[in-house]
Amino acid sequence: SLHVGGLNGLPKLMDLLEEPVPGVGTYEDFNTIDWVREKSKDRDRHPRGKIATKSKESTWALVKGISDAFSGWLLMLLIGLMSGALAGGIDISAHWMTDLKEGVCLNGFWFNHEHCCWSSNETTFQERDKCPQWKSWAELIIGQSEGPFAYIMNYLLYVSWALLFAFLAVSLVRAFAPYACGSGIPEIKTILSGFIIRGYLGKWTLIIKTITLVLAVSSGLSLGKEGPLVHVACCCGNILCHLFTKYRKNEAKRREVLSAAAAVGVSVAFGAPIGGVLFSLEEVSYYFPLKTLWRSFFAALVAAFTLRSINPFGNSRLVLFYVEFHTPWHLLELLPFVLLGIFGGAWGAFFIRANIAWCRRRKSTRLGHYPVLEVLVVTAATAVLAFPNGYTRMSTSELISELFNDCGLLDASQLCTYANGSEPKSGGNALPDRPAGAEVYSAMWQLALALLFKVLVTVVTFGMKVPSGLFIPSMAVGAIAGRLLGVAVEQLAYYHHDWVIFRGWCSPGADCITPGLYAMVGAAACLGGVTRMTVSLVVIMFELTGGLEYIVPLMAATMTSKWVADAMGREGIYEAHIRLNGYPFLEPKEEFSHKTLAMDVMRPRRGDPPLSVLTRDGMTVEDVEGLIADTTYSGFPVVVSHESQRLMGFVLRRDLIISIENARKRQDGVVSSSRIFFAEYTPPQPASSPAPLKLRGIMDLSPFTVTDHTAMDIVVDIFRKLGLRQCLVTHNGRLLGIITKKDILKHMAQIANRDPDSILFN
Amino acid sequence: SLHVGGLNGLPKLMDLLEEPVPGVGTYEDFNTIDWVREKSKDRDRHPRGKIATKSKESTWALVKGISDAFSGWLLMLLIGLMSGALAGGIDISAHWMTDLKEGVCLNGFWFNHEHCCWSSNETTFQERDKCPQWKSWAELIIGQSEGPFAYIMNYLLYVSWALLFAFLAVSLVRAFAPYACGSGIPEIKTILSGFIIRGYLGKWTLIIKTITLVLAVSSGLSLGKEGPLVHVACCCGNILCHLFTKYRKNEAKRREVLSAAAAVGVSVAFGAPIGGVLFSLEEVSYYFPLKTLWRSFFAALVAAFTLRSINPFGNSRLVLFYVEFHTPWHLLELLPFVLLGIFGGAWGAFFIRANIAWCRRRKSTRLGHYPVLEVLVVTAATAVLAFPNGYTRMSTSELISELFNDCGLLDASQLCTYANGSEPKSGGNALPDRPAGAEVYSAMWQLALALLFKVLVTVVTFGMKVPSGLFIPSMAVGAIAGRLLGVAVEQLAYYHHDWVIFRGWCSPGADCITPGLYAMVGAAACLGGVTRMTVSLVVIMFELTGGLEYIVPLMAATMTSKWVADAMGREGIYEAHIRLNGYPFLEPKEEFSHKTLAMDVMRPRRGDPPLSVLTRDGMTVEDVEGLIADTTYSGFPVVVSHESQRLMGFVLRRDLIISIENARKRQDGVVSSSRIFFAEYTPPQPASSPAPLKLRGIMDLSPFTVTDHTAMDIVVDIFRKLGLRQCLVTHNGRLLGIITKKDILKHMAQIANRDPDSILFN
Repeated sequence: SLHVGGLNGLPKLMDLLEEPVPGVGTYEDFNTIDWVREKSKDRDRHPRGKIATKSKESTWALVKGISDAFSGWLLMLLIGLMSGALAGGIDISAHWMTDLKEGVCLNGFWFNHEHCCWSSNETTFQERDKCPQWKSWAELIIGQSEGPFAYIMNYLLYVSWALLFAFLAVSLVRAFAPYACGSGIPEIKTILSGFIIRGYLGKWTLIIKTITLVLAVSSGLSLGKEGPLVHVACCCGNILCHLFTKYRKNEAKRREVLSAAAAVGVSVAFGAPIGGVLFSLEEVSYYFPLKTLWRSFFAALVAAFTLRSINPFGNSRLVLFYVEFHTPWHLLELLPFVLLGIFGGAWGAFFIRANIAWCRRRKSTRLGHYPVLEVLVVTAATAVLAFPNGYTRMSTSELISELFNDCGLLDASQLCTYANGSEPKSGGNALPDRPAGAEVYSAMWQLALALLFKVLVTVVTFGMKVPSGLFIPSMAVGAIAGRLLGVAVEQLAYYHHDWVIFRGWCSPGADCITPGLYAMVGAAACLGGVTRMTVSLVVIMFELTGGLEYIVPLMAATMTSKWVADAMGREGIYEAHIRLNGYPFLEPKEEFSHKTLAMDVMRPRRGDPPLSVLTRDGMTVEDVEGLIADTTYSGFPVVVSHESQRLMGFVLRRDLIISIENARKRQDGVVSSSRIFFAEYTPPQPASSPAPLKLRGIMDLSPFTVTDHTAMDIVVDIFRKLGLRQCLVTHNGRLLGIITKKDILKHMAQIANRDPDSILFN
Repeated sequence: SLHVGGLNGLPKLMDLLEEPVPGVGTYEDFNTIDWVREKSKDRDRHPRGKIATKSKESTWALVKGISDAFSGWLLMLLIGLMSGALAGGIDISAHWMTDLKEGVCLNGFWFNHEHCCWSSNETTFQERDKCPQWKSWAELIIGQSEGPFAYIMNYLLYVSWALLFAFLAVSLVRAFAPYACGSGIPEIKTILSGFIIRGYLGKWTLIIKTITLVLAVSSGLSLGKEGPLVHVACCCGNILCHLFTKYRKNEAKRREVLSAAAAVGVSVAFGAPIGGVLFSLEEVSYYFPLKTLWRSFFAALVAAFTLRSINPFGNSRLVLFYVEFHTPWHLLELLPFVLLGIFGGAWGAFFIRANIAWCRRRKSTRLGHYPVLEVLVVTAATAVLAFPNGYTRMSTSELISELFNDCGLLDASQLCTYANGSEPKSGGNALPDRPAGAEVYSAMWQLALALLFKVLVTVVTFGMKVPSGLFIPSMAVGAIAGRLLGVAVEQLAYYHHDWVIFRGWCSPGADCITPGLYAMVGAAACLGGVTRMTVSLVVIMFELTGGLEYIVPLMAATMTSKWVADAMGREGIYEAHIRLNGYPFLEPKEEFSHKTLAMDVMRPRRGDPPLSVLTRDGMTVEDVEGLIADTTYSGFPVVVSHESQRLMGFVLRRDLIISIENARKRQDGVVSSSRIFFAEYTPPQPASSPAPLKLRGIMDLSPFTVTDHTAMDIVVDIFRKLGLRQCLVTHNGRLLGIITKKDILKHMAQIANRDPDSILFN
């Protein structure tokens, strides 16, 4: 009880007492931590309070302090290295296995399509992908590369590989690590806010998630690896925390590390370290002190450079989609950008509703009993529908990359086969606007079909029992819509450059519209609609392009998207999933503006039996055990006496049970009729009475209190900012009731006309 | 009292009472606001708590809600436009007036040197600056441009102009707006933390600061305009707040706007919107909700683009120092970068100590009585010393720009006159390493002298009674040191490319060292040492170069610099100045790790007279007036009775005085012997007794309380996170004492062995 004693600020008194009872001060699974208590525990580790009198001691303290501070940086370095390496491995394997669905390299089966063709002599740009070393399955097995039979052969093998990968992924998840499914971000948000889910960030989850992520991505399902990479990075962070006592033992400190790890995840997913840090700050983290900002920036950079030195994309670029635009945008183009924002917002709102409805159906009907079958059916449907269309057959990140791309002189893409109406006037790679050729129109049709396909398939895919992120699918939807709009505007400007709106800035023969930029803006808008990210999204996109120039279009679209989506439903996809799972998450962003008072929310309500309290010295072990057995509360206030109801402190149920059990086992004379004392000084007992049990050590002497007249928005603010688990309510100095985090969440659910019983955990 | 009544959560009761007494709920100058109270006031404005029953009402509420939300965005837009325009004006005027010290343009006196020569036909790069339209003063007056006489003439006029500008600046500041001096950032930090300094962000300050900033920069003093631009932007924000009731009346809301305005300031200062937002978050702001993050990003972007459309640098670039480096850096170069970091940290620590010592001397000796003379002497010394050296004669931002610059083929700078040892092998602008020519060596000497000059002069300049920032001088010191080191390493690598450390990456004839990068890293290190900025500094620098490539060198240097500087003194320059001025600023970054308890800090201390309290119904107007007259406390707790000491609420002194005064004037029958009631229900009074005075309306029914055993670090955390002004201390439900923000600051000062009486304000 030294530990908790220190918390209560009586170190001198407690030093005299016995060793701490093991287990006191820890938490049960699926419970919420008390941030204040954890931070105090960390403080107790530091003996800096004492003024070192001897210089030797002070040197020692200095060395300890430095190694202590250094351990945090070392941990960040390790997380960066490990996450970067894992992300590199995932990228390379997923790339290889995605290509394996279509064919194999004769130089060595471990080469992917691109690597295989590097050594090829055919270096013309158009034909670079058609190198003799790379054989499609039909070519390899039946020796034909063209014709309906080869096509069917390739089709069948494509679907079979996809089914095999998906089956392996879902089986591994079910067999070894059920927590490895999904994107993990909703759970990480909840964990960072103080919830405990044991094993969610454990080594098995890490191993299985890494493997199954590669399998799931390779299977061609409409999912991304970006969200799960955040989970992977957080697992790395959590596992590496075990190397340092400071972080292993303290739930609050560990969450600081996890916040940084979340930044690392986004950093390696997009090659955007600054965006990653802002993502962690804006979207994921709950408690983000400035120290963490700096450290996560460091970790994100280390991870990004580790990934770059692995060079999984083979182009020495840090970023997933490297884009270079040459043309500035015109103010009038803001109109289509805002349109894309509206589309993105509508897509976000639609996706969240549809996906939540589908997930709810999965939870409540028999569908949820056959996760393997579900994955196989969805994979089969996806593969069968995806193969015929070139834009859905390629991996989603390749698709996005192609859509973002600005058409250059040497581009072989179908999207860039414009009629050669006019010769380029200026040097370099910039091309003037030209009329679209037939291939572009056919590409437009294929893209439109791909858009429909992605929209429908993503809704049923996200939430299945495989690792699945939705950054990439959302971006794909937006990129397709953006490119379609971009090409439309481009052709409009070409054929109607005499219209008033184009006159002055879009002369014939000039390159005035960049459809790739539209794709990028659309991608940002759709991702923003789904996740409701704002600043971090713009910064991630900014890091992709590197030009401050394009921030304004991105921002206009993201802002519109967020407004539109917010108007159609307040929650982002992660919050919606948190609520679906009933996690106790107190949203730090949402403003609580209801005019209720603490007395309206606290328990006991009017007419309820009075609050179960302990008294300073009036109860026996039996009484307390009876109270514990009769109630399910997580803790009990301690009052001076039942009559005065003056509050002394607060005792947690778990600590109480452990302490009484321990005392009954180890402490002589403690029996059912022993009296329990929470007072500082135990009055002398008559010789005949059994040995008293002193439990002041486990009592929190500084419980948080508010008055019954405190407005609930202040109470909510206190809970959020200090990370409380419960708060006691007093009136004129007398204990009146208690408000727990769950009470607040239930109250908020009630106000929003939702079912308060949807909050499942404490 | 409706207002405050609402705060206390009794709107129904209070609705029946009379109109609020004017003045209740406002603050006095040089006092700290209560964040919780301000936030509650804002909540009371929103009638969202009530569920609108009629659809018409709900539509109206929706429209109101939208216009309400929109007003925030509109305000941001206006701040961005105004600050961007002002910054553009300042840039252009300062540029022109700086050149005016050396000469004048014959085409029109309003052209600066660069603009004047744009129309010149001489377009060779070397001679571009020597165009016939631009005349130096000597040329104009005595017709000579060379020779000792012309030199002396130019020298004299240079010094005279400098003295004139400086005299005007200091006179204007003294006559019209004493708050316009300095950088303003320490005060803004304090204001954002909840302090009130009336007029500090007013229109006079804005006008005078804008004018004198131009004068001070043009006078050639060693100061920058970046810090003051933050002040200017905050003035814009504060003034524009008056257009919207929501922000005018609420101190907390207004501070959210000011946080965004600080971001705008840095955004226009460096053309770095993301860096500006992070600067506000990391360095300036106290309360920075996510909503503010998004809005400040918007405002920062608007400002940056307004500035760009004004185009003060004439190059369509957003940024002050646009740099493009062509050569990657090598891992071994981290060693000189870390050395620069150590230099930066040492410079930062030295500067802070020296500057604070000098400012303290100014405060305590007769020096402070002659601010005009001081400015004139420093200006004269600066001008006299600066003129002979080309690197100090040019404006500091030009100097930095030149030092950052990578030497290209066509560069005419003295720093780039390398011996033409080898012909460039590759095309483009990249040059191989070459031996330095005699001119480079002479430039090195001049730079070394300039470094010494800047170091000494900046110490005495910062803190004078003119607007003065230290971003630019600090960066200049670092850039000079960095360039010197860069050239040294470059020559070392050229002459000793066979050394082990250079072998493998620096072959002869290759371009392996970029001295400009060293200058940039040095600038970041020195600025980091002075301000202790970290992430925001790296991001600002990243926005200058645009390349993720150079983040690692910048980070290595900034981290080293911060560690070295922190080891030599915990505080950054802004915190040091805050402390020098005795402002009540509770540093949110510093961890409080002392093991004291609330009972050790609260007043009354052991042996002091008991706490002055009001009782629920036992006091007359006379008693209370006596209590007010006898004490100077800002507020009084209200207890049920002196015997029970059970806490009911808290009343602010100011509200009490205003209410009693008001009641005596307006309310019939309130005399000295009237009893004051804080209770909810007033018992019936005998007919003979004077009319009672009911003051429940001004009582805060939900004062914050902690127990006497609460650890002080928790108390400090509560004060920081909730923005409290005072907190009451109880023991077992009884009122024991009070802790104010000032008590905490005094306690912290005591722990750090500083004078607790240096905290001057409440």
